[in-house]
Amino acid sequence: MNHIGERPGADRPVDLIRKKRDGHELSPAEIERLVSGYTKGEIPDYQVSAWLMAALLRGLSRAETAALTDAMLRSGEILDLSEFPAQKVGKHSTGGVGDKTSLVLAPLVAAAGLIVPMISGRALGHTGGTLDKLESIPGFRANLPISRFLEVLRACGCAMIGQTDEIAPADRKMYALRDVTGTVESPSLICSSIMSKKLAEGVDALVLDVKTGSGAFMKTQEDSAFLAELMVETGERMGKKVVALLTDMDQPLGACVGNSIEVEECLQTLRGEGPEDLRHLCLELAAWMIHLGGRAETIAHGKQIADELLTSGQALEKFGRMIELQGGDPRVIENPERFPQAEQSLDIVSPRAGYVTAIECENVGTAGLVLGGGREKKDDSIDPAVGIVLHKKVGDPIASGESLCTLHYNSEARAIRAKRLLEESYFIGDAPPPPRRLIHRVFFPATEGLAPKQQGWREFPRV
Amino acid sequence: MNHIGERPGADRPVDLIRKKRDGHELSPAEIERLVSGYTKGEIPDYQVSAWLMAALLRGLSRAETAALTDAMLRSGEILDLSEFPAQKVGKHSTGGVGDKTSLVLAPLVAAAGLIVPMISGRALGHTGGTLDKLESIPGFRANLPISRFLEVLRACGCAMIGQTDEIAPADRKMYALRDVTGTVESPSLICSSIMSKKLAEGVDALVLDVKTGSGAFMKTQEDSAFLAELMVETGERMGKKVVALLTDMDQPLGACVGNSIEVEECLQTLRGEGPEDLRHLCLELAAWMIHLGGRAETIAHGKQIADELLTSGQALEKFGRMIELQGGDPRVIENPERFPQAEQSLDIVSPRAGYVTAIECENVGTAGLVLGGGREKKDDSIDPAVGIVLHKKVGDPIASGESLCTLHYNSEARAIRAKRLLEESYFIGDAPPPPRRLIHRVFFPATEGLAPKQQGWREFPRV
Repeated sequence: MNHIGERPGADRPVDLIRKKRDGHELSPAEIERLVSGYTKGEIPDYQVSAWLMAALLRGLSRAETAALTDAMLRSGEILDLSEFPAQKVGKHSTGGVGDKTSLVLAPLVAAAGLIVPMISGRALGHTGGTLDKLESIPGFRANLPISRFLEVLRACGCAMIGQTDEIAPADRKMYALRDVTGTVESPSLICSSIMSKKLAEGVDALVLDVKTGSGAFMKTQEDSAFLAELMVETGERMGKKVVALLTDMDQPLGACVGNSIEVEECLQTLRGEGPEDLRHLCLELAAWMIHLGGRAETIAHGKQIADELLTSGQALEKFGRMIELQGGDPRVIENPERFPQAEQSLDIVSPRAGYVTAIECENVGTAGLVLGGGREKKDDSIDPAVGIVLHKKVGDPIASGESLCTLHYNSEARAIRAKRLLEESYFIGDAPPPPRRLIHRVFFPATEGLAPKQQGWREFPRV
Repeated sequence: MNHIGERPGADRPVDLIRKKRDGHELSPAEIERLVSGYTKGEIPDYQVSAWLMAALLRGLSRAETAALTDAMLRSGEILDLSEFPAQKVGKHSTGGVGDKTSLVLAPLVAAAGLIVPMISGRALGHTGGTLDKLESIPGFRANLPISRFLEVLRACGCAMIGQTDEIAPADRKMYALRDVTGTVESPSLICSSIMSKKLAEGVDALVLDVKTGSGAFMKTQEDSAFLAELMVETGERMGKKVVALLTDMDQPLGACVGNSIEVEECLQTLRGEGPEDLRHLCLELAAWMIHLGGRAETIAHGKQIADELLTSGQALEKFGRMIELQGGDPRVIENPERFPQAEQSLDIVSPRAGYVTAIECENVGTAGLVLGGGREKKDDSIDPAVGIVLHKKVGDPIASGESLCTLHYNSEARAIRAKRLLEESYFIGDAPPPPRRLIHRVFFPATEGLAPKQQGWREFPRV
């Protein structure tokens, strides 16, 4: 059951667990042994989950985080995208509720002439997953082999697939384990998981959207900033251009939480419409991607380029092309009724007049999960049609009896549970809350050659 | 993979893990759900090991410890020993190196007219196991069904078996998991594991031998005292007479570390001979058992009774009877050459003259394990013949080139590894170290009716 090396009392997996449990630092070789042993199936889940909990509670040093990232990256293949003359730019979000920017950004930045290879994830805990959203498009295939992924990239400049067996298999296995063992919320584990996958994508530059607030995995700005710095440092150490934006996840992003309804919202945004917060964040992230990819001297210029690509319809056209290349039905763009539709709907109304002062964001995500939009068990199937449409966001005035949000559902029992969660999620007060920022801060690395000659955190104006 | 109740976000195993991870207290119902789910196989090893690590690092409250003990006790049967008119007395040691008192105490206290039902464990980590020692007696069967266990008890007043599927199955499963996930060393987990088994034995009184020092699981007196208090409290809450002795495990107990050689040492002690420290501790523990069992008004009287039972040969006779009743060959008593014998031996000599100032006790235990006397993997078989005989203990003078200890082995490769460990374990200085205590303190509970009208800790004179 327990793998034994030549020196018992020192090299066994249980000794690596005990070492971390007692607060000591593991060497890169020890971390490599843990990761490769787990990948090969020599070290069982139950030992790794104990180690992960010790790592979460004791913390990992920067050196341990780097070693873990490196070991997971080297557990699989690293994509070779040297055939593409344009810069390859990646983007990653740490996950949130209604967080759907990837679906807008991949075609938008590809329309700007860059290459956007995206390896995305599935719903995790209360947060949605890009792949689950894409798969609500009839026929869309997210599990392409690498060879087909490259063909799609060649044909349209962007492609979006799920993690394959070839890419960071150690992370794939560990990610699934963390989800069910309460070991998700560790900055070091999050950093190594994200960065091992992103570095395997073979990108030159990477824009990180680090979420903070009640719907994020990191609830405080302090924790989120720590994670952002850790990821920027790790990326920089690997020779990549990396920037991290610290963005708000204290309420859902946009109006929709679900799968097909989030894709519909992205289609609106790709038309230059859609909710203001989603549009604003997409333009900002796109601007950074275009800038780091060398297509714009400044962020302002990058934003202008992105705005034009939305208005002209070029970004939307690119999205349709990608859908088609990945086996999906591009007619959903013109005919959204082709998306799976929920059978029933139900409004949650405000018991009083006033202003929305807060929305318990994680609860909203859990309500979406409960409706069937996420997974309660690892092997649960997703219901693509269900979801929540928020009519009121933080700061909005509301009348008594007015609808706060609408549930779209296929199961009465699930709707009852989701309704209860949502009723507890909205806070109504007499006065509007202070205005909030969508983008809190931006972290630039010390890397030379980055156009902005600043370094560290920058405050953003309120939006 | 993950069991889901009716209220996701609150009742799933992952939520119980997160709750403990974040330092919150679980309710008795939540602990019951975890234990029964694990016993039934609904909650997998990898979730329980993460919870155990969180429990170890965050700690369990007294209420959580009691709930865990109770849930594990109720996961199986509780022996009904009401047919026996005499008091039923149990004994448990928290484990150490060369710690073999159970083999002396069961027949000794049964010879005093009490009933001693012992459910013992196997080697765990660097510590030996009573069952593995007993099984070095040719033919001895430790895995008797409960019905046969009762027959042996009726016939000779004592019986020693391993944990069965009927007794605290939750603990049995969790104990094996803790051993390979670095979650052994938690006072609360140790307490609930021990007390659930001991309370299932159906005893009226219980004497706990809580080890402290470099060869114990609890290395400091502070930790050991915490564990002792926790166990006494837990036992008291369940209506049992319980006392805990805090005893030294900063060096091995007696001279022998192994399986058959430890049984031989017990046979010497049952003849009224054997090493002084082993004899002294056995008399003290026996005195408490006899006293709590109502056969002696004072500890001094209990000790006198025990001493006479050793000198008269009645205790040894009882041991022979028990061996026979459990299928073993009682001729080993007169003919120790009938025990399995190691093929080779090797002396470790002192590089200098002086005094033994310390013995790294856990290392000695690990050396015994490495020789084949314990398990490196869960399914390893034990070599009953191998072991270490210590010729010098802490405080003994030693000449240069004189033998510190002898290794008895069957594998050259294993002997080399054990030799290295033992060479690092002995510390030789110019002057003898200060005298040490074998019994540090005794903890009496607040229970009324216990003869000693004291409560709390008592200092013991140096021995």
